[in-house]
This record gives sequence, C-alpha cells and structure tokens, in this order.
Amino acid sequence: MKYCSKCGSENIQFKIPAGDNLKRYCCDDCGAIYYTNPNVVVGALCKYEDKVLLCKRNIQPRLGLWTLPAGFFENGETLQQGAIRETKEETQADINIIQPYTLFSLTHISQLHYFYIAELTKPKFGPTPESSEVALFTEEEIPWDEIAFPTVYKTLKYFFEDSKTNTFEYKEEEIKLG
Amino acid sequence: MKYCSKCGSENIQFKIPAGDNLKRYCCDDCGAIYYTNPNVVVGALCKYEDKVLLCKRNIQPRLGLWTLPAGFFENGETLQQGAIRETKEETQADINIIQPYTLFSLTHISQLHYFYIAELTKPKFGPTPESSEVALFTEEEIPWDEIAFPTVYKTLKYFFEDSKTNTFEYKEEEIKLG
Repeated sequence: MKYCSKCGSENIQFKIPAGDNLKRYCCDDCGAIYYTNPNVVVGALCKYEDKVLLCKRNIQPRLGLWTLPAGFFENGETLQQGAIRETKEETQADINIIQPYTLFSLTHISQLHYFYIAELTKPKFGPTPESSEVALFTEEEIPWDEIAFPTVYKTLKYFFEDSKTNTFEYKEEEIKLG
Repeated sequence: MKYCSKCGSENIQFKIPAGDNLKRYCCDDCGAIYYTNPNVVVGALCKYEDKVLLCKRNIQPRLGLWTLPAGFFENGETLQQGAIRETKEETQADINIIQPYTLFSLTHISQLHYFYIAELTKPKFGPTPESSEVALFTEEEIPWDEIAFPTVYKTLKYFFEDSKTNTFEYKEEEIKLG
C-alpha cells in the first residue's frame, strides 16, 4: 500500500494503531486505518454413486492439476451458496449440499478452506473457462499425484477413509507451510 | 475507495473486471483490482461447571450489552488460536477449546461468525479495556434481554438446549437482516 485510498496521501505507515495490538496500514494524514484479514475459500466434494467430481485447473495457480470445485467466498452469500456457485462456475454441475466436512486454517497464507460434502443432482457437468476437464472418479481412478492443493488432497483422503464406516464427522485442521 | 492505493490515481471504477462476474474497484490507470471479501468473527462459549462466561461490552457497537468473547479473525493464526486470543483479550481468561459449535453466515453484512465450545482452565477472569464486566452465568441468570448480537443469543440458546441431552452437534445457519 503506497497511497491512502481515502485521501490520496503517500504518508502511509505500517504500525500498531492506538488501542490495537497488530500492525495495520495507517494514513498519518487523514487517520484512515486499513485492515486486512484472512480470506475464506469454499468448495464441495460432490459425489455421484461411488465417484467424486474433480476438475482440471485451466487457470493459475496449479494449472493442469486436479482439484475439487472451490473458490473465494464472496460478499452477500452464505457459505453454502458459495460452494454451490463455485461448483456451477467451475464444473457446470448443480449440487445439493449434504453436510459441512473439513475446515483448514492455512496460517502461512492467512486463508481458511471450507469444504462441504454434496451430491450431484444429476450426472451433468462439463468444462468451463476455469476447468479444462471435469470428470467423475472412483477412489482408485483419482490422479493422487496430480492434486492441486493439500487441502483438496486431505479432504478426498478423509472422505474415502470415512466411506468405509459411512461416518463423516466434521473436521478442523491446521495446514502449515512445507 | 477514491484513490488507487498502488499508483495514487483517482481513475477508480466500480465494475466487473474481465473474466470475473462481480463488481470490484478497478484502477483504470494501472490496472489494479481491489477485492473485498467477507470477514470472519471467531469466539468462544466458555463454560465452567454449569455456567458460561459473558462480557459486558465497553466498546461500540452495542456498548453496555453482554456478549461472548469474540472478534475479528486475524492473519497468521488458526481459528482456534483466534478464539483463544479474543477470549484472553476480552476477559483475561485462559481456555481449552472443546469443539466447533456454531457457524453463521450474515449475508447483509458479509460476515461469518464462528463459535467454539471451550472450558475455562480455572475460574480466573476480569474486566479489560474491551469489557467493563466479565462474569459467569447460569442459564437462569443470563440477561437474555441484554445480549449484544443475535449470533451470540442463538449460540447460548442452542448450548442450553443441547445441554439437556449432552449432545452438542455442530450447526450452520444463515442470519438475515431484521
């Protein structure tokens, strides 16, 4: 941050404001304080029969690797609406949310990743600007070495492990760098 | 947003960037795009014997009303660390997290509120700059008409209802304006 977006001043300091205990970008001319907080990524593990829906990323980062449909949670929506919207945008698929499933705190990039278990309302899906391929995979068919993100890998692993007992407990976990 | 915080230009448009589908603040001079996404508020329902810990707000909004310790989730921490930090800041208390409990999507203000059930490690707490009073309450003693936020009210109600069966299922809910 180089200029104050309220008054245009270049007199920006990264410092702890009065009464606070974390550094923020502060304008020493107009007094504006700029807070940045973690972003939430929301997505869905969408199942159909004994398969789950994956999409091959057509955008950076991790272009060409496989992921669950997911993206940044947006203003004005519920988390479930976010998961439904992202799934539609990335796979063309319509889903029903079944339950919340995994929540990861990624402290090194200040993100939360939140995945639902969902089901395809019908086996209808296809490529989109964000996904060069969209397909259903059984556990054995999943390209485990080509999964885009650790939170997606873990969510898939938990799902197939939990499928053995048909008990899908909600899980929270911290993901650290490295 | 009046000035671009990267280049200082006043040529800011609120429009849908190429490849996107939501309006963002965009600088037509340097091409910067500014995303604003929902914030997460994290807190804890802290129990000790048959009581829960409430704090009387010493800051706006809702100054003078009672709440559970909670505040904005910050960069670089896990959600559980956020709940522990906020509880310490607002009540001086040390807690152990027991489980995630409630998650509310507040679409009208683009916030998520996430509450854990926790326990006080010992009955030691007190006022802070953010809380004029901090105290333990049984269900009957809670000032139900003076609770600061609907998500706090609901979390407390769910907790005492669930206490009857000693089954505290994780819950998700949408809170709408009004």
